[in-house]
Amino acid sequence: MKYSENKVRVIYGDTDAMGIVYHTNYIKWFEAGRTEFLRQLGYPYAVLEKEGVWLPVAQVVCNYKKPAQYDDVLVIRSRVKELKAATVVMAYEIYQEATGECCVTGETKHGITTPDLKPLVLKKANPKLYEMMKASLEE
Amino acid sequence: MKYSENKVRVIYGDTDAMGIVYHTNYIKWFEAGRTEFLRQLGYPYAVLEKEGVWLPVAQVVCNYKKPAQYDDVLVIRSRVKELKAATVVMAYEIYQEATGECCVTGETKHGITTPDLKPLVLKKANPKLYEMMKASLEE
Amino acid sequence: MKYSENKVRVIYGDTDAMGIVYHTNYIKWFEAGRTEFLRQLGYPYAVLEKEGVWLPVAQVVCNYKKPAQYDDVLVIRSRVKELKAATVVMAYEIYQEATGECCVTGETKHGITTPDLKPLVLKKANPKLYEMMKASLEE
Amino acid sequence: MKYSENKVRVIYGDTDAMGIVYHTNYIKWFEAGRTEFLRQLGYPYAVLEKEGVWLPVAQVVCNYKKPAQYDDVLVIRSRVKELKAATVVMAYEIYQEATGECCVTGETKHGITTPDLKPLVLKKANPKLYEMMKASLEE
Repeated sequence: MKYSENKVRVIYGDTDAMGIVYHTNYIKWFEAGRTEFLRQLGYPYAVLEKEGVWLPVAQVVCNYKKPAQYDDVLVIRSRVKELKAATVVMAYEIYQEATGECCVTGETKHGITTPDLKPLVLKKANPKLYEMMKASLEE
Repeated sequence: MKYSENKVRVIYGDTDAMGIVYHTNYIKWFEAGRTEFLRQLGYPYAVLEKEGVWLPVAQVVCNYKKPAQYDDVLVIRSRVKELKAATVVMAYEIYQEATGECCVTGETKHGITTPDLKPLVLKKANPKLYEMMKASLEE
Repeated sequence: MKYSENKVRVIYGDTDAMGIVYHTNYIKWFEAGRTEFLRQLGYPYAVLEKEGVWLPVAQVVCNYKKPAQYDDVLVIRSRVKELKAATVVMAYEIYQEATGECCVTGETKHGITTPDLKPLVLKKANPKLYEMMKASLEE
Repeated sequence: MKYSENKVRVIYGDTDAMGIVYHTNYIKWFEAGRTEFLRQLGYPYAVLEKEGVWLPVAQVVCNYKKPAQYDDVLVIRSRVKELKAATVVMAYEIYQEATGECCVTGETKHGITTPDLKPLVLKKANPKLYEMMKASLEE
């Protein structure tokens, strides 16, 4: 699986007084996206956490292209962009379901850590997930 | 102390595409209000929690009077409205600092519980806080 | 149609440091619920607004039964509870998809107004929607 | 004025089930920071908007250093980092008031536009604000 897709419909609570989606909400949807990515990959984040592997956010980047509005249906496309010993970068695109038009692109960089936030070498700590992510990256 | 007051300035992130504060945000500010109430009473919620007393929300009521807008400075007035053996009701008014005009009124009902959400009789579990709240109520 | 149902999956952004869904988020999901109710009824809120009929929130009540947690799939059941000349009350239940267990129940009371927030008699202003809602209420 | 500072106290609504501030909330506080920066500079964003100058967000970057927790008081330090003909970059640091420890650093890049999102040359459109920002940058 190269990328996952899931959908969200914009409610008033997602918008702001400029009449568009408030900019931080896309970044919240990145979280919904990567959660879905891991689920579709076969490794739900909830399972991962129980096994003692955390993916704390180290950096967020979001580029705003064209604002979404109330009642729009958006698609969150999520994929692995980079996989290193103890970090992973996920990339996202959020686009309009109706038109395919891109609203935002972005990335989140995650440490791969213990629950105490100590770095883990994923290949050793969880070879199965490492291979799954690597395969997705190379697809 | 009969009631506490604290302030918040409305940002875009608090508003929605109707051009006004999104209705659930006032209820979030109720939390900021009761936290400040407990602090001014002399019993910060963070301390209370460490002592094993939780105040989970059992019911929220919010009445909308006049919408606030971007950049308004709002005052959250918070007080104890009712104190029973194992429940407490807090009442709130959020009004415009500039005009005194009322935006919303509301209440939150809280259980008084252990961290496992088992009811506690506050008078026994924490007589000091019980007396403080009672005194505030009767003021 | 007596009620609508739509689903939401809880993300970290919906939870708080107590390990459960932050209480105001259910009320945000009430919005997602009534939006879906109107859509399924055949009258999307976006259409309604274009026709000059607004449904500003006048009161919110939410009763907390059993907290939802990260990654839970919740179902929002929404229906008309009361329909008067210029107000409508919607009722909600949010429950766990997996177990059917109820997390919260609640209501929102709405004025039926012009965009200037002047009361409208729905039966006159929009007889079609009035009849649809009445039929749903009586079902 | 080189930078502005304003404060926020973390409530439960800002945290997530990992027990720390949910990562997108710092970016919401960047908005509170730049609003305060403009106010302290003498040019509130609300005024700017009325004059037909908008600052839509084109890019957000946030670097996470050390998570903040419930009840922490955070200071948002905001400054102009880069000023070009029709764009401005603001930089932020959010740190613990009690210890000075840095929680996050970040930047937001803004277009300078008309309400229709057409680029404006700030020096022409609003020389006063341009000079104020330039002076702040060079301080």
